[in-house]
Amino acid sequence: MNEQIAGVIRLKKNEDRRLKAGHLWIYSNEVDVAQTPLKHILPGSQLRVESANGQLLGTAYVNPHSLICARLVTRTDQPLDRSLLVHRIKIALSLRERFFPEPFYRLIYGESDLLPGLVVDRFGEHLCVQITTAGMELMTDEIIAALDKVLRPSSILLRNDSSAREFENLPEQVVAALGEPPAEVELIENGVRFIAPLHDGQKTGWFYDQRPNRAWLKGLVEGKRVLDVFSYVGAFGVQALAWGAKDVWCADASARALDIAQKNAQLQGGGDRFTALEGDAFASLKALKENDERFDVVIVDPPAFIKRKKDLAAGTQAYRRINELAMRLLDRDGLLLAGSCSMHLPRESLHDILRASGRHLDRHVQVLAEGMQGADHPVHPSIQETRYLKAFLARSVRV
Amino acid sequence: MNEQIAGVIRLKKNEDRRLKAGHLWIYSNEVDVAQTPLKHILPGSQLRVESANGQLLGTAYVNPHSLICARLVTRTDQPLDRSLLVHRIKIALSLRERFFPEPFYRLIYGESDLLPGLVVDRFGEHLCVQITTAGMELMTDEIIAALDKVLRPSSILLRNDSSAREFENLPEQVVAALGEPPAEVELIENGVRFIAPLHDGQKTGWFYDQRPNRAWLKGLVEGKRVLDVFSYVGAFGVQALAWGAKDVWCADASARALDIAQKNAQLQGGGDRFTALEGDAFASLKALKENDERFDVVIVDPPAFIKRKKDLAAGTQAYRRINELAMRLLDRDGLLLAGSCSMHLPRESLHDILRASGRHLDRHVQVLAEGMQGADHPVHPSIQETRYLKAFLARSVRV
Repeated sequence: MNEQIAGVIRLKKNEDRRLKAGHLWIYSNEVDVAQTPLKHILPGSQLRVESANGQLLGTAYVNPHSLICARLVTRTDQPLDRSLLVHRIKIALSLRERFFPEPFYRLIYGESDLLPGLVVDRFGEHLCVQITTAGMELMTDEIIAALDKVLRPSSILLRNDSSAREFENLPEQVVAALGEPPAEVELIENGVRFIAPLHDGQKTGWFYDQRPNRAWLKGLVEGKRVLDVFSYVGAFGVQALAWGAKDVWCADASARALDIAQKNAQLQGGGDRFTALEGDAFASLKALKENDERFDVVIVDPPAFIKRKKDLAAGTQAYRRINELAMRLLDRDGLLLAGSCSMHLPRESLHDILRASGRHLDRHVQVLAEGMQGADHPVHPSIQETRYLKAFLARSVRV
Repeated sequence: MNEQIAGVIRLKKNEDRRLKAGHLWIYSNEVDVAQTPLKHILPGSQLRVESANGQLLGTAYVNPHSLICARLVTRTDQPLDRSLLVHRIKIALSLRERFFPEPFYRLIYGESDLLPGLVVDRFGEHLCVQITTAGMELMTDEIIAALDKVLRPSSILLRNDSSAREFENLPEQVVAALGEPPAEVELIENGVRFIAPLHDGQKTGWFYDQRPNRAWLKGLVEGKRVLDVFSYVGAFGVQALAWGAKDVWCADASARALDIAQKNAQLQGGGDRFTALEGDAFASLKALKENDERFDVVIVDPPAFIKRKKDLAAGTQAYRRINELAMRLLDRDGLLLAGSCSMHLPRESLHDILRASGRHLDRHVQVLAEGMQGADHPVHPSIQETRYLKAFLARSVRV
């Protein structure tokens, strides 16, 4: 046995089925702890994984304190080490380079790139790394070294402040791991230049996942009035500006995000066609309606309203309310772009919200496009959690 | 009551719920035939539709011989007449003109454009019309007059040879309704020029529905080897050629379709990079494997393997087999574009076929994009039948 592999975990009978179907996760109740106790294993250690009858299933890193107690890193007895990290980063990079003309993308998307617990966003020569499991945490130095070897970045920031770290008993911290990460980074998305806050922005500072759905706006917004609800730093709204919208309103609860959105609008030479609307989105939409404002295109891309399964009913209702409020603001013949990043909200539910809102307001709704996250957030087809983003483009006509 | 409205149909108790939720169809078992018998109604007549308690639900055209015995044309007591046809054609046209720079698209997509039973494809100045219900059949002259008024086309062909006409007791016929429809039409899709057979091609001669999913290939095929399975006249394969593929193979059962595909390849100046492969797709893929051929990109976009619900199991198996055969032909790091136009095949099933094929062949699969039909085939969110097209772009890596 390889010296980096610290022992064995054996699964209960039939508990190998999910792994064999392609999944990478092992839940703690699936382990035969009588034969292979987990208790005293150092969080993050790599172990050999066997089925009940001793068949090799692969190598996994283990965290006895987590409900997902182990994640496969290979389907052989090979451990994850610096050389395999380098190999996997290269395979991930080749995908991104095939799809994107410029070095601005999610470079590593966890399980989908066979690197569970690791996310890396690239902003040119600056990398932003997020580690969410003890297994990856233990390999932090190797990860930094591997990224340095493949990409020679000028800086790497560890944005280890994700709430997911709680489940793995990991502390929250944001530190520079290489060079001096700048406060703000530049990026280009769909041909449009932006700045984004690196250290204190939401998540890693930018949401590359909506890129293909933002591209829908190209060709549809020239001379139009556009409202971007939950705009953050203006990814949707400012792209609409760059593509010729005559008037763009960005609504967000964060004054700091709207300040950056305003700067981004200025970068396009569209500062005079930009309006920031600070406050609660529901209240803002109601106020716009009361003022009889109308838009040709409204984008509604909220933060996850459904963080846990138990929020499903209330969260679905919130998606329904905000989208209906948005549809009310559309002109006679308008476009609604409705997104959801809630993994727990089924695609069909968001589709049905468009139907129900249309009926309620007596509009004829036509769904024109359906989208998911971009190719730099590939879906692992065995892991539903990786297929989280939904977006619909719908036309609403008063007939 | 309007003189064009020939009477009333009244629904049974609670049978108004689907209509109120947005649907346009009435099934024969939902009608209170004791109060409002259907038997002697002239197929295609327009009737007032009422709920059990006499509430107006709208106006529908009726066919007593069909399982779907009526389809709403308005939610008022206004009948569908030439002036409303003109209005709806204009609303449909304005959507297409907003999305497409050139006049090549599906102009009318039945229920989704509030014109149930009517499909119109536009090839510049030539229109191809498909009528599938008695209600629309009765209005043929009005439809031709309305299209003439809005678009002034030089020709209109009635391609009334769809098998759906059987359900409505309508005869099959292909006739010129205006001018002299040419044998072949020209069109531009995603910037690429094509010819398509108008009178005797599949359906209306061209499948505009896959347009956005064909556009995925742009930027991904330069210098690559591409295989287009079930190519018909080469829409996917020839676009790959136009975007720089070094070698494109089109496989189809129809020699005539492949002849046109070859012509289309020549139109791109790519006749020498084009290979036609005539025969059964399953057999062709096996033969390619035996000859050790490998491709960077394989497209599998079959005709509907599942035409009726009872074919679901066998059809799903066929999708599984053909996609796994295709994945086998991919090089170390290849792309599979998998489509299905079977309304009965759930999107999730095609997604799972990618997972299962990958596991079976020991490839790591990443789903990079999910698509549906283009904006000229809008989905009516209450009518599942209008949301039929699925497409996935997946990467398959040998790890």
